[in-house]
Amino acid sequence: MGAAILTDLLMEILIPVAAVVGIGFALMQWLMVSRVKLSPESQGPLAGSKNKNDYSDYLIEEEEGLNDHNVVLKCAEIQSAISEGATSFLFTEYQYVGIFMGAFAILVFLFLGSVEGFSTKSQPCTYSKDKYCKPALANAVFSTVSFLLGAITSLVSGFLGMKIATYANARTTLEARWGVGKAFITAFRSGAVMGFLLAANGLLVLYIAINLFKLYYGDDWEGLFEAITGYGLGGSSMALFGRVGGGIYTKAADVGADLVGKVERNIPEDDPRNPAVIADNVGDNVGDIAGMGSDLFGSYAESSCAALVVASISSFGVNHDLTAMCYPLLISSVGIIVCLITTLFATDFFEIKAVNEIEPALKKQLIISTFLMTVGIAIISWIALPSSFTIFNFGNQKQVKNWQLFFCVAVGLWAGLVIGFVTEYFTSNAYSPVQDVADSCRTGAATNVIFGLALGYKSVIIPIFAIAISIFVSFSLAAMYGIAVAALGMLSTIATGLAIDAYGPISDNAGGIAEMAGMSHRIRERTDALDAAGNTTAAIGKGFAIGSAALVSLALFGAFVSRAALSTVDVLTPKVFIGLIVGAMLPYWFSAMTMKSVGSAALKMVEEVRRQFNSIPGLMEGSAKPDYATCVKISTDASIKEMIPPGALVMLTPLIVGTFFGVETLSGVLAGALVSGVQVAISASNTGGAWDNAKKYIEAGASEHARTLGPKGSDAHKAAVIGDTIGDPLKDTSGPSLNILIKLMAVESLVFAPFFAAHGGILFRIF
Amino acid sequence: MGAAILTDLLMEILIPVAAVVGIGFALMQWLMVSRVKLSPESQGPLAGSKNKNDYSDYLIEEEEGLNDHNVVLKCAEIQSAISEGATSFLFTEYQYVGIFMGAFAILVFLFLGSVEGFSTKSQPCTYSKDKYCKPALANAVFSTVSFLLGAITSLVSGFLGMKIATYANARTTLEARWGVGKAFITAFRSGAVMGFLLAANGLLVLYIAINLFKLYYGDDWEGLFEAITGYGLGGSSMALFGRVGGGIYTKAADVGADLVGKVERNIPEDDPRNPAVIADNVGDNVGDIAGMGSDLFGSYAESSCAALVVASISSFGVNHDLTAMCYPLLISSVGIIVCLITTLFATDFFEIKAVNEIEPALKKQLIISTFLMTVGIAIISWIALPSSFTIFNFGNQKQVKNWQLFFCVAVGLWAGLVIGFVTEYFTSNAYSPVQDVADSCRTGAATNVIFGLALGYKSVIIPIFAIAISIFVSFSLAAMYGIAVAALGMLSTIATGLAIDAYGPISDNAGGIAEMAGMSHRIRERTDALDAAGNTTAAIGKGFAIGSAALVSLALFGAFVSRAALSTVDVLTPKVFIGLIVGAMLPYWFSAMTMKSVGSAALKMVEEVRRQFNSIPGLMEGSAKPDYATCVKISTDASIKEMIPPGALVMLTPLIVGTFFGVETLSGVLAGALVSGVQVAISASNTGGAWDNAKKYIEAGASEHARTLGPKGSDAHKAAVIGDTIGDPLKDTSGPSLNILIKLMAVESLVFAPFFAAHGGILFRIF
Repeated sequence: MGAAILTDLLMEILIPVAAVVGIGFALMQWLMVSRVKLSPESQGPLAGSKNKNDYSDYLIEEEEGLNDHNVVLKCAEIQSAISEGATSFLFTEYQYVGIFMGAFAILVFLFLGSVEGFSTKSQPCTYSKDKYCKPALANAVFSTVSFLLGAITSLVSGFLGMKIATYANARTTLEARWGVGKAFITAFRSGAVMGFLLAANGLLVLYIAINLFKLYYGDDWEGLFEAITGYGLGGSSMALFGRVGGGIYTKAADVGADLVGKVERNIPEDDPRNPAVIADNVGDNVGDIAGMGSDLFGSYAESSCAALVVASISSFGVNHDLTAMCYPLLISSVGIIVCLITTLFATDFFEIKAVNEIEPALKKQLIISTFLMTVGIAIISWIALPSSFTIFNFGNQKQVKNWQLFFCVAVGLWAGLVIGFVTEYFTSNAYSPVQDVADSCRTGAATNVIFGLALGYKSVIIPIFAIAISIFVSFSLAAMYGIAVAALGMLSTIATGLAIDAYGPISDNAGGIAEMAGMSHRIRERTDALDAAGNTTAAIGKGFAIGSAALVSLALFGAFVSRAALSTVDVLTPKVFIGLIVGAMLPYWFSAMTMKSVGSAALKMVEEVRRQFNSIPGLMEGSAKPDYATCVKISTDASIKEMIPPGALVMLTPLIVGTFFGVETLSGVLAGALVSGVQVAISASNTGGAWDNAKKYIEAGASEHARTLGPKGSDAHKAAVIGDTIGDPLKDTSGPSLNILIKLMAVESLVFAPFFAAHGGILFRIF
Repeated sequence: MGAAILTDLLMEILIPVAAVVGIGFALMQWLMVSRVKLSPESQGPLAGSKNKNDYSDYLIEEEEGLNDHNVVLKCAEIQSAISEGATSFLFTEYQYVGIFMGAFAILVFLFLGSVEGFSTKSQPCTYSKDKYCKPALANAVFSTVSFLLGAITSLVSGFLGMKIATYANARTTLEARWGVGKAFITAFRSGAVMGFLLAANGLLVLYIAINLFKLYYGDDWEGLFEAITGYGLGGSSMALFGRVGGGIYTKAADVGADLVGKVERNIPEDDPRNPAVIADNVGDNVGDIAGMGSDLFGSYAESSCAALVVASISSFGVNHDLTAMCYPLLISSVGIIVCLITTLFATDFFEIKAVNEIEPALKKQLIISTFLMTVGIAIISWIALPSSFTIFNFGNQKQVKNWQLFFCVAVGLWAGLVIGFVTEYFTSNAYSPVQDVADSCRTGAATNVIFGLALGYKSVIIPIFAIAISIFVSFSLAAMYGIAVAALGMLSTIATGLAIDAYGPISDNAGGIAEMAGMSHRIRERTDALDAAGNTTAAIGKGFAIGSAALVSLALFGAFVSRAALSTVDVLTPKVFIGLIVGAMLPYWFSAMTMKSVGSAALKMVEEVRRQFNSIPGLMEGSAKPDYATCVKISTDASIKEMIPPGALVMLTPLIVGTFFGVETLSGVLAGALVSGVQVAISASNTGGAWDNAKKYIEAGASEHARTLGPKGSDAHKAAVIGDTIGDPLKDTSGPSLNILIKLMAVESLVFAPFFAAHGGILFRIF
């Protein structure tokens, strides 16, 4: 069995140090962004970076209005409006989810406490019957605490992300005056602030929670890490509301603004005359930034929890091998360091000088982080793990070697890269799929939609094979623990992933601010180029989120099955099969709700925008200001109201199925939702991303082919705008929420497993 | 174990008599349709039916051009053009599928023959090792024969359907001059011809094949009914090509015709100036009629085979209880009689007098047939089954009572009705879902598409619960045999189902002919009303096809698992799980192919139609005739070429997975494709149906609300046309093909199970 090289003490130091370094790096990036001043005094590119960034592409100052103080003031004003709107929405949202959080915490306590009738007596452990574990009541208390901890960390992650994004967007606009490279670096650094803060925070809180809980649990690691799973549940349930609420907010505003502004009134996107324009820009920050931050934090928390809970009943836990036990946290620690180095490649080692270098630079981030991380995993697997150990595998213990576990993590990591590349191929307008979609706009919106849907369906194939291969390899090598660490592998470069992901909405906002501030069209072209790359990275980010969600859910599913004491989930039993088919239906039910919500909210927005255009004299001429606040209110009200039914569907399904139909049917539901949800999510995200970029492809007119389709306002362009609008709820509301659906149902089942195992399946008991 | 009341002799008489009665009834209906003369001599409504159909709604003769001989001649001419086009396409298609059929027959023979190395020696039976069964080579030979038999019956079914439909369409148009009721009866009778011919033929051929095969097999019923499964494979593989090829044909023509005609040139649908108009009408007959006929025949053949193969290893087969063994055939026999009575309610007992009576009349067909059939099943279960018997259940024998089997069949039957009603609710423009979609056209095509997609997703919920409940009930009561007879229950009223289903495209064609013949707009209004109801019944038919496909596939899946000697399909093993997730991906891959095919073929069609409009002088003015033949050729070539890749995907997947990855992974693939495909298929069909009817709702302007959206040519109507065009490939190509995908993969796996069990899983054996 050979002991690990890394001692417990070193491990105990390494993890918090990595987290602190991550936070420090984030603050440093933030400091550099803050040096772009939002006041008219600033008279040139950043002093500190002037020598380094001596671009050839900065332009005649007059043309760019560099010395126009009003432009800077205007940008600052717009930014603060966006920031205020976003802050106020998040506070409203948090009030509602706060109530939910409290209520659900009580539910967690009651359900888990009732397992042994709120008894305070110790009881035999689940997996080693000869030992005594802490009472079920302790599990109830600590699960509730870790649920709250996860929920709060998730909210904080989303909020911080929003704050930095709204801090950075106008700065990116202003930097765009000096060239596309400077704007890119500002946006990217801001994304990195969010990425590193989130990854480091998640790690640190989890680490502290484990150490605090250990004071009570002592040697009862089984109980300790079961209680810790509440952290994942808290993280993901907040993420659900963040994604759904934010998603409805942003797309109601976006669709509403586009339908009247672009389609009916023929004014450009983000035109300040459009009453919904502020709501649209606020939406990017609350949906794409805060929502996505919560989402990926949730994935990270869940995969760590899934790995920890399986490890606790494997030889790591049974032998109390703390360093090996904390292997999942060590992977994340190494991930932070690796991402830190990777970031330097984008911000310091290389420079972006032209528009066509943006996408390759972002792609390089993915490649570099993956290569470095492979080395990092190899090292940590070598020093932190004993050369041989056993992993719990549905009742048996499976012998595993440390190099096998390395392969599990690595296969997840590389599958993530494959998914990223495939997503890029299908959503970037540099390749033929999006160009074909753009080309189909020649014959109108209908063919555009048909081709776009077909593209989304097709884009599912390779990611599913990548996921299937990682599942097969990691499952075969190290059972469910293998799956959990494969998910962690995919998420280990989360800081970089989030950085390039958050970069997108920041650039999008920067473009919006440029338009609203009335800056030159060349500035807008630069931010558009950033944004087009951003659409692709957003799709890549969603690909990662979905891929990792699939692995995480499977790992959680495995942990649930173990904890519910099932040894098989046999499709050939009616209880399981009906679960499977109903589970496969849930993503459709959920999508129907969210898409309809966006549609209805958008209709209300359209009416309001039309009303303002018709009733406010001088609005179209630019002599009167629109009433932005009413539009913000419409989006806020709609998203708060409409996020409840889909949220309830996801949160209640496991409780209802588990309580009334029992753990077998619930396993079926989880497996069905997983295998069906992944497909819907990937196809929805990629279809939407492709439509958006097909539109941008026509607008940019960068190639001979693109110019035959354009310019803006041509029939083909109008068809492309319709596709883009349809894609909005697909790619930013229903698609990305689905990965939370599958994760959340799995983690919730895991947390409530003892209750379902003890009291579940009421209906079948009656009949 | 009490013996059955029905003797073997009576049973042997009852089945062929029912089949012959069905064929006779079909011929009688055909005779009545044929009395509508396509020559100018006919000077009024049918003499024979004049008294009965003394409608109040027939109109002033002059206005309707009743005495205009040219109109009748024109109709006859158009009909023969459509009929020729359809016949010529089907012959071309059959040439290609004939080659495939031959090649695949050889494959079946070689794979199954190689199981025991082409040995001619008898071998121990699979399920009762103490007895001797016929050699594997006999299984190979007879499976090949029954494969060919199924394939040919399927082709014949499709062809006959097409023939009667193209015989009836102009007759329906002409009858529409005398009122909507007469047109309805003509269309409905023609649908009934197809329904009864198909149901009776399928039953008769199967019955004869069993009796002929028995001459060789004697007492080896296990071998006999295993060989019979080839019949299902043959039927379904032809159905696949029929559906996909026909679907691509019809939608390429339809989309192409609409995009140029309706959207660009602003000429009405089916305008004779549109060069693609004949191809469009041909398409309805080869896709919606021939394709659907093959499809439902396939479902019927497969569910019978699945039930028979499970019964052969249950006490029916083991005890050689022939009457009980033929219970599945007896259900179908009763079904024919029940449907015959039901049909009389539509054609003789009641009369349609107004447009708003059409849909209720069709709905009544469903209700009446379901009620009567419930009684029929009760009787047949009582007289044909022993009061108690055992059913094979994955290695065990399960005790079942005859009334339990009655419940299995009945639950399938009633689930079909529920699915039918839900489908009607979501796709008929009499209810709020479609009206909401129509309303969303106010804000343009984008919201229309968003609402339509959401509607499709939502429409999945109740059908899935209905399927899940039938699975649970029938599975719990009588294991896989229960599922198989539940599927048969759903399909027992197939003759009525097909009649109301085929009625749709016939009415659609009738409208097209009225337009092309230049008949009065009031005729067109009547055929449009028939057609709107037809869209709903088409969606209902697809709902039935999908629901029964789900049950059939599960039954086939169960039979496959039994034959492959698996006792569990455990999701918690990596082999199964990767199968599950990849299987769930297949419907997306398949849909991507078929949608893209339609899109590309439509683009070609658009170019040709545009070319003709631009290059043929006088075409728009109606003074020159378009070149219909080129458009027919484009559709033909595209569909023949494009049906191969999706066909190959479906046919090769089980072979590749079974051979290389083995039966566990293949079970996962089947289960995954089943649970995911059902959702995609239902949502695609209903979304498309809803869009089509939302457009018709606006066009008809029958309510206050509808009139605010119209008239034809308004912005809302244009948005609705875009939705309709997008829905075409969804509802008529990819959606309905998916149920063949799931059935076909299951039946193919079942047929090849002995080979996979003996030689499969090469890849895992190597590693």
